[in-house]
Amino acid sequence: MKQYMKQRIQRVFNKTDLPLEGILVKNEGETVFEKNFFYLTGLTTGLYEGCIVIAYPDGSLDLFVSELEAELAKQAEGDLHIFRSRTELQQQLQNAIGSLTHIGLNFSGLSHYECQILIKEHPQITFYNVSNAFVQARMIKDTEEIHAIKQACIISDRVAEKIPSLITINMTEHDLAAGINYHLQRYGAIAPAFDTISSFGAHTSQPHYTHGTTQLKEGDFILCDFGAKLNQYHSDITRTFVYQKKTLQQQEIYEIVQQAQYAALETIQPGIPAQQVHNAAVQVIDKSPYKGRFIHSTGHSLGLSVHDGGIGFTETCETLLQPGMVLTVEPGIYIPSVGGVRIEDDIVVTKEGYTSLSNAKKSFLEIS
Amino acid sequence: MKQYMKQRIQRVFNKTDLPLEGILVKNEGETVFEKNFFYLTGLTTGLYEGCIVIAYPDGSLDLFVSELEAELAKQAEGDLHIFRSRTELQQQLQNAIGSLTHIGLNFSGLSHYECQILIKEHPQITFYNVSNAFVQARMIKDTEEIHAIKQACIISDRVAEKIPSLITINMTEHDLAAGINYHLQRYGAIAPAFDTISSFGAHTSQPHYTHGTTQLKEGDFILCDFGAKLNQYHSDITRTFVYQKKTLQQQEIYEIVQQAQYAALETIQPGIPAQQVHNAAVQVIDKSPYKGRFIHSTGHSLGLSVHDGGIGFTETCETLLQPGMVLTVEPGIYIPSVGGVRIEDDIVVTKEGYTSLSNAKKSFLEIS
Repeated sequence: MKQYMKQRIQRVFNKTDLPLEGILVKNEGETVFEKNFFYLTGLTTGLYEGCIVIAYPDGSLDLFVSELEAELAKQAEGDLHIFRSRTELQQQLQNAIGSLTHIGLNFSGLSHYECQILIKEHPQITFYNVSNAFVQARMIKDTEEIHAIKQACIISDRVAEKIPSLITINMTEHDLAAGINYHLQRYGAIAPAFDTISSFGAHTSQPHYTHGTTQLKEGDFILCDFGAKLNQYHSDITRTFVYQKKTLQQQEIYEIVQQAQYAALETIQPGIPAQQVHNAAVQVIDKSPYKGRFIHSTGHSLGLSVHDGGIGFTETCETLLQPGMVLTVEPGIYIPSVGGVRIEDDIVVTKEGYTSLSNAKKSFLEIS
Repeated sequence: MKQYMKQRIQRVFNKTDLPLEGILVKNEGETVFEKNFFYLTGLTTGLYEGCIVIAYPDGSLDLFVSELEAELAKQAEGDLHIFRSRTELQQQLQNAIGSLTHIGLNFSGLSHYECQILIKEHPQITFYNVSNAFVQARMIKDTEEIHAIKQACIISDRVAEKIPSLITINMTEHDLAAGINYHLQRYGAIAPAFDTISSFGAHTSQPHYTHGTTQLKEGDFILCDFGAKLNQYHSDITRTFVYQKKTLQQQEIYEIVQQAQYAALETIQPGIPAQQVHNAAVQVIDKSPYKGRFIHSTGHSLGLSVHDGGIGFTETCETLLQPGMVLTVEPGIYIPSVGGVRIEDDIVVTKEGYTSLSNAKKSFLEIS
């Protein structure tokens, strides 16, 4: 087994004091997804609906995969068990864990129904919740994970620089979102990382608005928040433009957000509490004429999930930054019914401070 | 409340004999999604992560929505409760169900973690599994649902007819998938219904292959399986083409699949077991030189999920067809290392037989 995969598995066990003989992760699929299945196996393609992985404290794996995805699953390095039916899977599981008594499960990523079946079929086992061990382990990315996120960032950077050429008068927000998604995929993403935000004019003042039939008008802000999904990892960036001639106020708002992002970035270094980064961004905005107009947190953890959990640049998060954490840095100013500006980049905390993973140009373009 | 929404809610209660005072559905979001939240509320846009709906036997609703999506949620007709924190939600829930003792939950769409919290916070309540009641109710679509699926089909039909103009020599499978997804969105889909399949040449023989860097060559089969997502509902169709000159064998395979689909469609009528439709398709293929080369089922239920559950045109499904069921009809022939053909359309069972919801051309085009 590759050394980093073994270390990744052991990192999860190290994050819990429970007397575990194994951790079982089932990826139910269709509506209940388990990113930890991909974390433990390192598998990058395939759906693996109904498949199971069991990790052991020595860093080894048993992998149970349906016949349909047996070929793909050979890329993982655990012991591969191929099942053709639920009965066969049940028998294989019994062989693997029939003699064990202490097993960890991610209670947050497994349906109550599936959990009940496991409890019924394995009455000798006590099942423990290891959700938090996964969150803690995944908070620090290993070199391979950082590489995967960087690849996703390279794609979203290319798309960000392409956006000005996609803009045409009277186009709808839907049109621009479709264009962004198209180029994400042309440049190698398996899918957009999330529902692309492409908002015009007053809609840019609503951070959760995605896109609609509104048409582009002269003087509109254009806010694009999007990312690439590739090999199970994600990027997440935002660029804001103005259509044709910008006003002095638009220029002012843009520059303050840029300064807020700069202040946040300059604060990042190992050992400081995450909230300090948020506070740095808030201070810049609250000293400006737009006090109180920054209405969300400054960033979130990024990885196998777009919101990877465990840490965020928020008002209350006291978690200390550590090298290997990957987060977004995304201050914004929002003026209801008028418009908003957000600038978002992805960074990895390093021993020295941070390294930017996304590098698309940040100048405030007037697009014509 | 709109009459059809009330009827929808009562249909779910009618599908269980449990002595329920209410059914509680939580949409956790991020990795655990609950289509039944949208089924009960009729909401078409928004994410509603962490939001809850409680349905009552008289067809009324209590809807608990976070501040962020309060505006959107006003489109639903239940009593709207807006929460700003987990504590506030907890208090509102206590007010709604604090005096009740028998509540239904979908054990398959709720994490074990969230279920444990509900049990702990409401010790007086017995929670029952109502997964099957939802599956049974959703199997028969009401007029509004059929309309929503039809809208999605109109989009995928337009894209199917656009595909020939997207094909160019040496393009990759990724390129074509990106083009299909782009046009789905340009024509009004909020997203592709699932990861679009766009396979060339020998890859068309693998029903689960999606797309890769393989380039298009003369004589290749081109298999496109895709759908539109719109207002929470989905379409799902497949068209197969050949690049430049087709061989006699390719023509033969295509015609047999077309005959198999026709045989399956002609079998559809209320009252017959679903398996009979599958058998009709299998018979056509097994009488041909391609006996045994049809390696999946003939169709699945389609709706809020792409695989909506409860019924399918499979070898073993004895469920009787009823008006209002929406299914795919998708026979195929797959010859390992050579290629495959699949033709897929979406239909609704009617009193008289069936109506096609998808209508894109089915002729076997040589694209040049």
